[in-house]
Amino acid sequence: MKLYDYRSAPSPRKVRLFIAEKGLDVPTVDVDLRARAQQEPAFLAKNASATVPVLELDDGTCLTESLAICHYLEQQRPEPNLMGLGAREQAYVLMWNDILTLEGYLPLQESLRNGHEAFKGRALPGPVAWEQIPALAERGQRRAAIFFDKLETRLGESEFVAGQRFTYADIVAFVYLGFAPRATGTNPVDGRPALKQWSEAVAARPAIQRAG
Amino acid sequence: MKLYDYRSAPSPRKVRLFIAEKGLDVPTVDVDLRARAQQEPAFLAKNASATVPVLELDDGTCLTESLAICHYLEQQRPEPNLMGLGAREQAYVLMWNDILTLEGYLPLQESLRNGHEAFKGRALPGPVAWEQIPALAERGQRRAAIFFDKLETRLGESEFVAGQRFTYADIVAFVYLGFAPRATGTNPVDGRPALKQWSEAVAARPAIQRAG
Repeated sequence: MKLYDYRSAPSPRKVRLFIAEKGLDVPTVDVDLRARAQQEPAFLAKNASATVPVLELDDGTCLTESLAICHYLEQQRPEPNLMGLGAREQAYVLMWNDILTLEGYLPLQESLRNGHEAFKGRALPGPVAWEQIPALAERGQRRAAIFFDKLETRLGESEFVAGQRFTYADIVAFVYLGFAPRATGTNPVDGRPALKQWSEAVAARPAIQRAG
Repeated sequence: MKLYDYRSAPSPRKVRLFIAEKGLDVPTVDVDLRARAQQEPAFLAKNASATVPVLELDDGTCLTESLAICHYLEQQRPEPNLMGLGAREQAYVLMWNDILTLEGYLPLQESLRNGHEAFKGRALPGPVAWEQIPALAERGQRRAAIFFDKLETRLGESEFVAGQRFTYADIVAFVYLGFAPRATGTNPVDGRPALKQWSEAVAARPAIQRAG
């Protein structure tokens, strides 16, 4: 088993933190996104969407998409449980994963990719060149602020994102929070005390410290 | 347990078809999105994101997001299995759900909501008014075509979306396919024979016929 990775991208970081929390040891292969290594035929054969992370199993099967990869790893090593215990907690983890990704990550990605010179002609990930749409950069900023207000409300009511326990939903939120300053130029913890307290607690976890 | 629903919206249709395939009987409550009933305080208390579907459990807990709701229902009634048997098939269902939603549904939604008069000031779902961005309507059309080409390739290689068996991934793809003519003005099965054959097979399933 090996993980195709890129150190500074948010999506594979979710999987790396998950692996660290599980105490698993999965070798990684760096895919240099800046050099467009994800567009090489050899990589597109593994993932036609030209994204990392990709988990390649020993028989050559390639799994893409962070949730699918982490769900697979959870079945391989059930402890410590990160995907939820029982139907209701599992549903909360999945629900929050979707809210975080659709309402948080996508606006951050829109903001970064439509607003920075470095992403000219690459306004969306994947094998196709997409021109930037400047209105999306501005909309992404506003949506991200609304999203972090929602997360602040949630973390004022609940110790962790999906409930009373650290789960995959916290990993997802923590990675998106870490991505926000680069995508928006501001740090969402400023003026959001519950988000700040939670993020400090997550950052202090031994596995998170180790995996970075 | 009850399902907050809206007949002509794609997202709750995924849950209705899932419920039909399970042979479950879940009462539905119609939320009239055209009359903006999802923006009423009583509904926002159930789902601050102002979207359907919402599954309200008997103790008042509200689950949002189709995947989370269907995962919950799968635990309540495991047969017939729709979320995958074993780690690998489950991962494929989750992986395809993300690909279908991120590469298929979101472009369709962009196309519809940014290109039609009826969605003026409602370019995104949710409680906030967002102005249309015309460039997104055009981009959404092009992305949708690329997506359906990808799905055609997949269904030329595999009998069903996630593998050799009908799963939740087929429900998701079937609902997005049904949404496409309204969102783009064209029917993706035209010129895509594998997609056409698969969609006819799904449409002929007794539960799909029943639930519509």
